[in-house]
Amino acid sequence: MQRPRWGNPGTPGHLPAAAAALVGTDDGGAHRAIAADDIELARPQVPAAVRASLSEVLGAAHVTDDRSARIAHTRGYSTPDILALRAGDATDAPDLVVQPGSHDEVVRILEICAEQRVAVVPFTGGTSVVGGLTPDRAGFTGAVTVDLRRLDELVSVDEISRTATLQAGLRGVRAEELLRAKGFTLGHFPQSYEGAGIGGYAATRSAGQSSAGYGRFDDMVEHLVLATPRGTFEVGTAPASAAGPDLRQLILGSEGVFGIITEVTVRIHPAPSHRVFEGWHFTDFAAGATALRTLAQDGPLPTVVRLSDDVETSINLSDPGAIGVDPGGCLAVVGYEGTAEDVESRRTRVSAVLERLGGTCAGSGPGEAWRTGRFRGPYLRDPLLDAGVLVETLETVTYWSHIAELKASVTDAVTEALTAQGTPPLVMCHISHVYPTGASLYFTVVCPETDDPIAQWWTAKSAANAAIRTAGAAITHHHAVGRDHRATYHQEIGDLALDALRAVKQVFDPAGICNPGVLV
Amino acid sequence: MQRPRWGNPGTPGHLPAAAAALVGTDDGGAHRAIAADDIELARPQVPAAVRASLSEVLGAAHVTDDRSARIAHTRGYSTPDILALRAGDATDAPDLVVQPGSHDEVVRILEICAEQRVAVVPFTGGTSVVGGLTPDRAGFTGAVTVDLRRLDELVSVDEISRTATLQAGLRGVRAEELLRAKGFTLGHFPQSYEGAGIGGYAATRSAGQSSAGYGRFDDMVEHLVLATPRGTFEVGTAPASAAGPDLRQLILGSEGVFGIITEVTVRIHPAPSHRVFEGWHFTDFAAGATALRTLAQDGPLPTVVRLSDDVETSINLSDPGAIGVDPGGCLAVVGYEGTAEDVESRRTRVSAVLERLGGTCAGSGPGEAWRTGRFRGPYLRDPLLDAGVLVETLETVTYWSHIAELKASVTDAVTEALTAQGTPPLVMCHISHVYPTGASLYFTVVCPETDDPIAQWWTAKSAANAAIRTAGAAITHHHAVGRDHRATYHQEIGDLALDALRAVKQVFDPAGICNPGVLV
Repeated sequence: MQRPRWGNPGTPGHLPAAAAALVGTDDGGAHRAIAADDIELARPQVPAAVRASLSEVLGAAHVTDDRSARIAHTRGYSTPDILALRAGDATDAPDLVVQPGSHDEVVRILEICAEQRVAVVPFTGGTSVVGGLTPDRAGFTGAVTVDLRRLDELVSVDEISRTATLQAGLRGVRAEELLRAKGFTLGHFPQSYEGAGIGGYAATRSAGQSSAGYGRFDDMVEHLVLATPRGTFEVGTAPASAAGPDLRQLILGSEGVFGIITEVTVRIHPAPSHRVFEGWHFTDFAAGATALRTLAQDGPLPTVVRLSDDVETSINLSDPGAIGVDPGGCLAVVGYEGTAEDVESRRTRVSAVLERLGGTCAGSGPGEAWRTGRFRGPYLRDPLLDAGVLVETLETVTYWSHIAELKASVTDAVTEALTAQGTPPLVMCHISHVYPTGASLYFTVVCPETDDPIAQWWTAKSAANAAIRTAGAAITHHHAVGRDHRATYHQEIGDLALDALRAVKQVFDPAGICNPGVLV
Repeated sequence: MQRPRWGNPGTPGHLPAAAAALVGTDDGGAHRAIAADDIELARPQVPAAVRASLSEVLGAAHVTDDRSARIAHTRGYSTPDILALRAGDATDAPDLVVQPGSHDEVVRILEICAEQRVAVVPFTGGTSVVGGLTPDRAGFTGAVTVDLRRLDELVSVDEISRTATLQAGLRGVRAEELLRAKGFTLGHFPQSYEGAGIGGYAATRSAGQSSAGYGRFDDMVEHLVLATPRGTFEVGTAPASAAGPDLRQLILGSEGVFGIITEVTVRIHPAPSHRVFEGWHFTDFAAGATALRTLAQDGPLPTVVRLSDDVETSINLSDPGAIGVDPGGCLAVVGYEGTAEDVESRRTRVSAVLERLGGTCAGSGPGEAWRTGRFRGPYLRDPLLDAGVLVETLETVTYWSHIAELKASVTDAVTEALTAQGTPPLVMCHISHVYPTGASLYFTVVCPETDDPIAQWWTAKSAANAAIRTAGAAITHHHAVGRDHRATYHQEIGDLALDALRAVKQVFDPAGICNPGVLV
């Protein structure tokens, strides 16, 4: 264990006994991370004039090249990112970390950095798993990370229209606390919930585990404020406009390359008073997928709905304490949140559909186990790596008619690529989000580490990317593009789309300082 | 009456007796349109080489400068557009009308016109009410209208994913017929349904009257194919992607300025087997609006839901045959389509909400009257103009908390502007589309014509635009920007947004030939 950055420091970061038994005991320390004090860090490069200007704007207390701050802001939280830092590689550390206190300060930071050709990386929770926080440094005089943590206010709530304006540096947990105090919920609970923040949700098109009930984050956004090197850009006039292209959708998913999102206005919902989470068993994945599709197409939808394949069900990742207890078949988790009447009404109608389509209700045990354990997965990566076990995830999305084929081809590609390296993997998969026309597939891959686990994983990931591309699926459903998906993304969207994105970047960021190397 | 272009030629284009009594009889022919044969048309300007090249690509039969074709493709169908042609003004007539038979032919048309600096206007139903079909001609060697009527195929249906791929030239009515034959519906019924086409729906972010049940057109689109002067641009990989900005939303609403949409893949739904449309009375607009907001926020939603204000209710435009029969208060129309079970389930739950919030069910009479008469409005404009009665509509959208204020300020602005011209108007309003955070307002304005009815209307329209802008609402909810809203749109989105759109246009359309003067 090296970095306490992910999420809630109070959450245990050690393997449950059952998981430890499954993956084998510690392999004698061969894969231990080097101590934080032993990480080598280059001297900060940013020109003194930049530092002076930034200190003048922000106050010296909010501009630091402190070693621990620089390390804590180095890259994101993909397994390769973790592996690099565990090996002592902090070559991507920013030269400075700054903490603006207002939107206007963010604009000033961008102006100063544009003048001096300093790369700028926006930072909320630091939970990127696609290299979204690793800027190109070539051609720049340094790199500054803009940590938005001081922009942490719930600016306003419109109770009639059910919208809230949130500053981008609010962590998801804090945003939810502030809204609950007013009787509302944002309803956005990605697995990174305990770490990630509002700006990151918007910049990466995050999808929360309750997307069936509350929508994806990009569905929720009514209005955005973006700080750019050319000033302030506000977008989103009204709930549903026919006035030209929807430019909100140009900023959502832009991953910091056009500027830094400082504020969003989003849909909110009354805080639910009731909740039921249940497990449902299906004999196979196809039957479960048909049941989920029927709910997505004909309704009603639960608030949460997901389906693990037989491998994931047998490992029972939904309940690390019960790992290894194989209930057989495929487990779906179906959750309802709302008023008592709404929960009961939907539950009755959903249950009728699931039963008709071959499901068997397993009661609230598996549902509650999943619910209470659902944010724990990421905390297990460091202890697994300590034990010599490589674990990483990837996700994609396609139409319902292509789901089975996509699942098989990605599983085969990853399995083949890792088996060829002498480390046959366990590949688990679940449907994590459903839509009327399709669904996402989320894969978890576990195998022994080789001597070069970063290269080992890239080989597998490349094979998965190629399989996704061949299947015509999207390279990401909710993890964004970053650096890691960039090449495949470019293949996916084509040259004209790339030209269009670069033209837009040129408008907002003529000096090209905004998160260089990411997305475009 | 001059043009048979709008919709179904079989629909009566004369005023019902009750309406005629309301507006007064014909004023002796002072406002009659000049005969079609008397319209003056300039000689076609387009270079002979362009015509030759287009004829070579399309076949001579699909390239015409025929007088009636040019007149039939002159401008759109706003009241000012109708008035101009009624006065014999065909200065905006295209020089050529071409009918490509394939996507590749559309690309070739654009390439040829880009080489020779010919302005290109895409055309499906010709029902634009915002000047979307009136290109700038300055700086161009001519103007060609690309009528997509030959691109009229239902390309494919994915019954599992519930998507259909439609060519852009399909009229709405025909698309629906083709889908119904396979057991599906698109569920898109704008008031222009009997005239408009698929490409227009996509290019203008059309919203159908059943948007509560089936969504807006821009919600339905999974994939788009755009022909541009630089070749083919396809966008949309999967139902829900986090891979960068959503570029579908850059093409939707682009009104032909980036190229011509030739094909879309959209969500479809099982054709409904059952239908119930009912009227509900509320004592006032505020009570009705609260009821609609409650349905939009807490569910369940009917398939159709709309609320007329007291003025519109008293005129009873929902049933032209019963105009003048004032039922008092405000009438809502609430419609359900689906399976028998779904219709009955939603109807029961919706009715309980409406009753709780002060609604009184008026039975299926008013609902069915609205349903059967709902596409008739546009057919009445010519006979009303013949009678010296100016009638035009406009729409906007805002958050629920701003609805009452917006309704009042637009009504006041239009009333004042027309009263000052000596023609005090009747201003009717209804909520036509509801969303969780807001709703659209649709205004119908009726008044006696002055001697210069085009200038008369622009004065009123400008006042409405200013009121909409002051209120922070969107300049259009579903009629798009065209030329008519361009100035207000630019104020609404700001300079950086405009720069971004122009940069994108420069990528797709470096010669600037695509629908010049519209949007950007």
